[in-house]
Amino acid sequence: MHYELYYWPDIQGRGEFVRLALEEAGADYIDVGRLPGRGKGIAAMMRFLENDKTGRPLFAPPFLKSGDLVIAQTANILLYLGPRLGLVPKAEASRLWVHQLQLTIADFVGEIHDVHHPIAGSLFYHEQKREARRRAGHFTAERIPKFLDYFERVLAGNPKGSRYMHGRIFSYVDLSIFQIIAGLRYAFPKTMKKLEPKYPRLVTLHDKVAARPNIAAYLASKRRIPFNNNDVFRHYPELDT
Amino acid sequence: MHYELYYWPDIQGRGEFVRLALEEAGADYIDVGRLPGRGKGIAAMMRFLENDKTGRPLFAPPFLKSGDLVIAQTANILLYLGPRLGLVPKAEASRLWVHQLQLTIADFVGEIHDVHHPIAGSLFYHEQKREARRRAGHFTAERIPKFLDYFERVLAGNPKGSRYMHGRIFSYVDLSIFQIIAGLRYAFPKTMKKLEPKYPRLVTLHDKVAARPNIAAYLASKRRIPFNNNDVFRHYPELDT
Repeated sequence: MHYELYYWPDIQGRGEFVRLALEEAGADYIDVGRLPGRGKGIAAMMRFLENDKTGRPLFAPPFLKSGDLVIAQTANILLYLGPRLGLVPKAEASRLWVHQLQLTIADFVGEIHDVHHPIAGSLFYHEQKREARRRAGHFTAERIPKFLDYFERVLAGNPKGSRYMHGRIFSYVDLSIFQIIAGLRYAFPKTMKKLEPKYPRLVTLHDKVAARPNIAAYLASKRRIPFNNNDVFRHYPELDT
Repeated sequence: MHYELYYWPDIQGRGEFVRLALEEAGADYIDVGRLPGRGKGIAAMMRFLENDKTGRPLFAPPFLKSGDLVIAQTANILLYLGPRLGLVPKAEASRLWVHQLQLTIADFVGEIHDVHHPIAGSLFYHEQKREARRRAGHFTAERIPKFLDYFERVLAGNPKGSRYMHGRIFSYVDLSIFQIIAGLRYAFPKTMKKLEPKYPRLVTLHDKVAARPNIAAYLASKRRIPFNNNDVFRHYPELDT
């Protein structure tokens, strides 16, 4: 199957969770927003977003075209791709469990974004910096530990051993955990340096994912967009307290 | 099938999206957190949350017990229940589309909550009132229209007519749209009075859902918890600008 991913070309953002799955599986895909030429680039993505002819309007990127289907919402795209890419077992209980974890990651990603945008997405960071500092204090002290405690607990309580989030089975949510740890390290290096000793299983999982051949090749390639401060994960030292 | 819903007993919250689906379908279910007696009530819910014996720890309510399965994340619960309750077609394209809409509703619900809690969930509203007022100005002017425009566009662009979110097919996301409109009316009555003329299809859908026999009976019953200011939707007049 040939897949077309539509997402912003200059950020990892939410699209990165999909890119990692496609890369790990060696899938046949194009990242439309990043390609030059006719029918490609941001213009192609915007045309899709504004075109209601399918009767299924899109709210926001990322979205994935797969044959006649156009699927939006990051976790929904992974729900669809998972069994097709061999990144989740086909059994319903497995698919629901991995999706449940992915939705909790989605909630975390929303909170990570709102640390630098607690008032409005339509304002610049510097216009809500005071509120961001206040939110960041709570975020680094309460929310990062709350989510990482939970994910570490999933690995620790795993009846099949602590290798992956879903027991012995490698799945797309392991890729997303890698991305969360990598992103938090970029955005909150001081906080993470202090916290990481409490999360040995998550750190090990991050390292194992990074060493997978397809992921290692992807991370070393130009296809991996560097972290930057227009993205979900942003490094503002004043928020890393 | 017998279902057990676990959620906070005093709020509609995220659990209400599940309650509406169970009620519409006339499902055999109990709302464990609201029941008296041994093995019931909040204590039963907390025991479940803290018990990792299943190897699949829970992050937060709501969660649903169905036989041996325990499923969390509101949209995930509806993904599971939808085909079983006859509230979504079995075809994959339909299930993905309705789930995609439900995930966009989940994003909206998160934003609705954060209007009164822009800094931290661990603080009281009065401790973040100044920031809440600032966020509310943007929320009512930008975000409510952004989401309602989108959902109205889904109804308007519907190739099968504008009856339901998924064409001619009634699905669980219609119940969730009802809840969103009802909740916004409670929380932001002035804003909604001004905005509603722009969203005739959503208002009609709200009314049609409210008139469905099982939903009408539910709304008139004690099972429907009244809106209140410990909930996601809160009426603070100073935020309704």
